Amino acid sequence: MSALVLGHMNPDTDSIVAAIAAADLYSKRGFSVAAAAQGEATPETEFVLRKFGLCAPLVVKDVAGKELWLVDYSDLPQAPAGMDSATILGIVDHHKLGNMTTASPLEAWIWPVGCTNTVLKSMYDFYGIEIPKNIAGAMLCAILSDTVIFKSPTCTEADKKSVDALAKIAGISDVAALGMEMFKVKSAVDAPMKDLVFRDYKDFDMNGKKVGIGQLEVVDLSILAKVKDGLYAEIQKVKSEGRHSVFLLLTDIMKEGSEMLIVSDDPSVVEKAFGVKPDGKTVWLPGVMSRKKQVVPNFEKAFK
Amino acid sequence: MSALVLGHMNPDTDSIVAAIAAADLYSKRGFSVAAAAQGEATPETEFVLRKFGLCAPLVVKDVAGKELWLVDYSDLPQAPAGMDSATILGIVDHHKLGNMTTASPLEAWIWPVGCTNTVLKSMYDFYGIEIPKNIAGAMLCAILSDTVIFKSPTCTEADKKSVDALAKIAGISDVAALGMEMFKVKSAVDAPMKDLVFRDYKDFDMNGKKVGIGQLEVVDLSILAKVKDGLYAEIQKVKSEGRHSVFLLLTDIMKEGSEMLIVSDDPSVVEKAFGVKPDGKTVWLPGVMSRKKQVVPNFEKAFK
Repeated sequence: MSALVLGHMNPDTDSIVAAIAAADLYSKRGFSVAAAAQGEATPETEFVLRKFGLCAPLVVKDVAGKELWLVDYSDLPQAPAGMDSATILGIVDHHKLGNMTTASPLEAWIWPVGCTNTVLKSMYDFYGIEIPKNIAGAMLCAILSDTVIFKSPTCTEADKKSVDALAKIAGISDVAALGMEMFKVKSAVDAPMKDLVFRDYKDFDMNGKKVGIGQLEVVDLSILAKVKDGLYAEIQKVKSEGRHSVFLLLTDIMKEGSEMLIVSDDPSVVEKAFGVKPDGKTVWLPGVMSRKKQVVPNFEKAFK
Repeated sequence: MSALVLGHMNPDTDSIVAAIAAADLYSKRGFSVAAAAQGEATPETEFVLRKFGLCAPLVVKDVAGKELWLVDYSDLPQAPAGMDSATILGIVDHHKLGNMTTASPLEAWIWPVGCTNTVLKSMYDFYGIEIPKNIAGAMLCAILSDTVIFKSPTCTEADKKSVDALAKIAGISDVAALGMEMFKVKSAVDAPMKDLVFRDYKDFDMNGKKVGIGQLEVVDLSILAKVKDGLYAEIQKVKSEGRHSVFLLLTDIMKEGSEMLIVSDDPSVVEKAFGVKPDGKTVWLPGVMSRKKQVVPNFEKAFK
């Protein structure tokens, strides 16, 4: 049985493209693997897969007894059912170290860069394996997506260098134009509220409290004006399912900031985390674009 | 303030040499770091440091508020005091993924190879940084120590290749002879029983139970005949300090097997783990040389 290469719950473009790229790399290193995902591709990811002629990975909801190579996470709350009896062979990631543990030594490449695909680009180089042209294009898009076309504070020199190298392999001349095309697809909000909230949503364990943080990135916040009340009602529902707080970041990638919708048993954590007093259900956080670098660490401290 | 590069409790040669090598590598990458250790060097490690003219790292017992690069572990039970308020910037390791977590992204290189210094050799290559001759010699010894001169089942092709390359850098022509010289130093048992038990000792959390596993490696088990009763009395004492079990592996590196001394609230775990019935306080485990690969995973399953 092939091991599965699998990203996190509510997969984003990085998570899905990383599974495809890592499966290519591992199989060329001699491992028997298949790319998988915990859910369907979002419209952004579909755009990327279609553009480069790649298939969406197999959707897998239970991994009991399976061997896994994880990409883009190491947190149990983002794992599928059956994780208890699965064996983790490796992790490629760019997040904080989560609460996964293993019974045997594993292969982990976890770097503080903007995107898992940046780590994978270096892994291809390290093993001297050529990146296929179509996978290179998708990897480039994943990096543009995760770094918000280099604007996110998570973006590093390594991300930029990887995009340069991948653009050459994929034969892409105007990287910025491709990025904007992709973010326009991402900005489409003609979907059920639930899909929008969970499009890029993660649960965290913060000092014993279950905290959900979602993010929608758009090229102009006015796009979301019509759906904001619906999104708020939806995150109230998500909170009522046993969570202490649910926060939804509405990120304006051109203005470079986020409006955060807030539902919490203790809204004071928001002021503790960001030093800004929320205006009822919402707060504008100028410059805040990265859940990983600017939101999660601040909340981790505020919840302590 | 410099960040500390720090290995596990009861540091072995790999842990101390990895801290020295990683500190060299990180400082050449532009980070401000200092090598540290959680305890004094063992006779084996002292032999290696003296042979290659290296200083023992600073001994550090409390890391409250400090920034850390960890080497050779990711398990909280092997961490020093003050870990709660320390910040982990990175991990280089070759063990199972432990229960450390971080609040921010980190740089982790964790590979299923025989020695942390094998990972570090690849990291030097990856960053295009030359390994100083004396550090190369010590890294080579650390790999010989952890892989028991290539005899341990943990030993991989990557470990052997690293030793070949490091021998060239360090100008060492007879690697096997250096290995035997080192293991003869390691075989010396003229030390207090407590020192012998804790020379290479680790506590594990196995399904909520605290389990200590120590290991002494000698070139001939008869060397330990005189001290065996004393060692047994000592691990009884260690167990009485709130542990479910303490196991001490007495490994004969020439016969390639280990006698395991057993003190446990439930000695049946030994039979569950190894399929061999202990003869009272002890059991001979043919072929068992690696705590990490052959002992810990088996106990993890037996304790489930």
